[in-house]
Amino acid sequence: MALDFEKTAGKPIECKAAIAWEAKKPLEVRTVTVAPPGPGEVRVKIVATALCHTDAYTLDGLDPEGLFPCILGHEAAGIVESVGEGVTSVKPGDHVIPCYQAYCGECKFCKHPESNLCVSVRAFTGKGVMKSDGQPRFTADGKPLFHFMGTSTFSQYTVVHEQSVAKIDTSAPLEKVCLLGCGVSTGWGAVFNTAKVKPGSTVAVFGLGAVGLAVIEAAARAGASRIIGVDINPAKFAAAKEFGATECVNPKDHEKPIQQVIVEMTEWGCDYTFECIGNTAVMRAALECAHRGWGTSVVIGVAAAGQEISTRPFQLVTGRRWMGTAFGGYKSRVQVPELVTEYLSGKTLLDKYVTHNMKFDQINEAFELLHAGECLRCVLTFDD
Amino acid sequence: MALDFEKTAGKPIECKAAIAWEAKKPLEVRTVTVAPPGPGEVRVKIVATALCHTDAYTLDGLDPEGLFPCILGHEAAGIVESVGEGVTSVKPGDHVIPCYQAYCGECKFCKHPESNLCVSVRAFTGKGVMKSDGQPRFTADGKPLFHFMGTSTFSQYTVVHEQSVAKIDTSAPLEKVCLLGCGVSTGWGAVFNTAKVKPGSTVAVFGLGAVGLAVIEAAARAGASRIIGVDINPAKFAAAKEFGATECVNPKDHEKPIQQVIVEMTEWGCDYTFECIGNTAVMRAALECAHRGWGTSVVIGVAAAGQEISTRPFQLVTGRRWMGTAFGGYKSRVQVPELVTEYLSGKTLLDKYVTHNMKFDQINEAFELLHAGECLRCVLTFDD
Repeated sequence: MALDFEKTAGKPIECKAAIAWEAKKPLEVRTVTVAPPGPGEVRVKIVATALCHTDAYTLDGLDPEGLFPCILGHEAAGIVESVGEGVTSVKPGDHVIPCYQAYCGECKFCKHPESNLCVSVRAFTGKGVMKSDGQPRFTADGKPLFHFMGTSTFSQYTVVHEQSVAKIDTSAPLEKVCLLGCGVSTGWGAVFNTAKVKPGSTVAVFGLGAVGLAVIEAAARAGASRIIGVDINPAKFAAAKEFGATECVNPKDHEKPIQQVIVEMTEWGCDYTFECIGNTAVMRAALECAHRGWGTSVVIGVAAAGQEISTRPFQLVTGRRWMGTAFGGYKSRVQVPELVTEYLSGKTLLDKYVTHNMKFDQINEAFELLHAGECLRCVLTFDD
Repeated sequence: MALDFEKTAGKPIECKAAIAWEAKKPLEVRTVTVAPPGPGEVRVKIVATALCHTDAYTLDGLDPEGLFPCILGHEAAGIVESVGEGVTSVKPGDHVIPCYQAYCGECKFCKHPESNLCVSVRAFTGKGVMKSDGQPRFTADGKPLFHFMGTSTFSQYTVVHEQSVAKIDTSAPLEKVCLLGCGVSTGWGAVFNTAKVKPGSTVAVFGLGAVGLAVIEAAARAGASRIIGVDINPAKFAAAKEFGATECVNPKDHEKPIQQVIVEMTEWGCDYTFECIGNTAVMRAALECAHRGWGTSVVIGVAAAGQEISTRPFQLVTGRRWMGTAFGGYKSRVQVPELVTEYLSGKTLLDKYVTHNMKFDQINEAFELLHAGECLRCVLTFDD
């Protein structure tokens, strides 16, 4: 495959991509032109990409900072096709996972042991362009298309900053480990890095999608003794139990607020609670059923623009701790390869999150599945 | 003095106290009757009592759970006069600090290394009565008077649960160490136990009363490199610098929100921020100028009933941590004696918090001083 890449290096590539021309419209699958990588950039051939709710959120026009037209997609895996000037950490043929959370290793955040919020390329990825020249690398009929989250994996070829690719073991199946680019890693990391769940502790998980199940899986691996899954859709309870939940609760089955139900089930609340939806009322509920005295509640879900969380300060004064996580606190380029290794050792349930496989051309159907809550993760692959 | 106590043990004592007959009225200093301690109770002769804002808050009728008539007061020191049946940890003549946050050593909270929120007597102190019989020990002309915070130190004699007295070194001056019963300990503990401030870190302290200054003092002792004091009254800046602030900011000097001012002063915010007022808008500001990625904000102030704190969840997702503290996280009976020992070793600035000394009869004047913001702590002593 590296030989093929020699033919395209330095030249624009015409390939298939899904364009989001504007909010609330289906994507258009068509040919786009992907420019060669500039200095410090990497062009990646995407082999498999999954859909995540953040893609849907932006496509639905809920992100006021969403830029159109653009190429969405941020949970994927692929192979380096070519690299721009000065790129040393990856080379053509390397297998990689694009990481929306970059890692430069040199900024204040990369150097801090408790943070993964690298700022090296943030100002540019937020604007949908590349750092070297402030331009996007995608065009359709000569019209520029914005990048998304520094990844834009809904294209057979994409260009990312060197800080945004994690080089992984070539033996890993790309159509599985693509999930480590976002949701599953986020759930695992929220447990291991952010909350630091201890053996024997009690846990409540609000929202039983892929992220919530990843939290449950990790909490079980961390040795939690009681894991309560919470969702208004009881069809999700079987999967939750398969991933490690010891019991499940449907807030609709109770007249009392769910936080009160959980406090009563546990006497004082849970040692750790996780919000995996993006609903600010649920974030409050999760905090308020964290254990009096020391309970930690972690916000994982992304709320709609402008929404706020609230509670009585007494909840904090009596010992609850409110925190959040982005990409589970993992330092992407360093730790995503470790997660791949862990997967290869057979210690994770990663395969179980892939409930649907489709061809890339079916991407709009895949979005419908996601909206219907009928899939955990749908993985799309390209024809060649 | 122990000999004198033998004369009163087992009998009601008539003594001077300040009665809060109802909210928003001055206290009445007059004679009350203090019954002997019941099983598990301790009668304490109060030697010195300070005033704290929580007393004022309740007297002002802002606490919807405030019970009247009552005997307020919770920051004091005294000498055990007699003990009830089964009390073994203190005896007549012992010097003690009444602790509104009890410690039994046996409940789930006492046994947990991260919590001081003992629940052994909470249900009773919250109702202004004693656990053994559900009655108060104070009467005036035969009419019962409720206890307050399990301490009621605005009386020359008070009765508290055994779980609520910390036995201290008899060489400690009671008119100084009385401050360790609330505000100063709370500020110190917020730094050492709750936030766990690290050497070289940056700190912002909102509200420069006694609690705020105690936070500053402790942050300086913890080795913080930059300590920013924040108050709308610049008259407080000199004291803040004396206690260890490296700089002070008045929000009224800026058009921008204070959190934005502090983020700009520090590039990304402070490693630790503390709210020492009880103002929910300031609690938000304190959170929002905690450092992106890892900043911790601690709520210390007690907000008015019904008020809520709010923020965008993005503030947490990008790494800020919101927590709170009650009595600085100190396990009262175990750690208050250690704080007294630390004071006696000369390592603290405790003496500096006592800005006024008055006779107990002047208690209403002392409340006026507190309301006017003209004192840190006013310590009242009894005539004999």
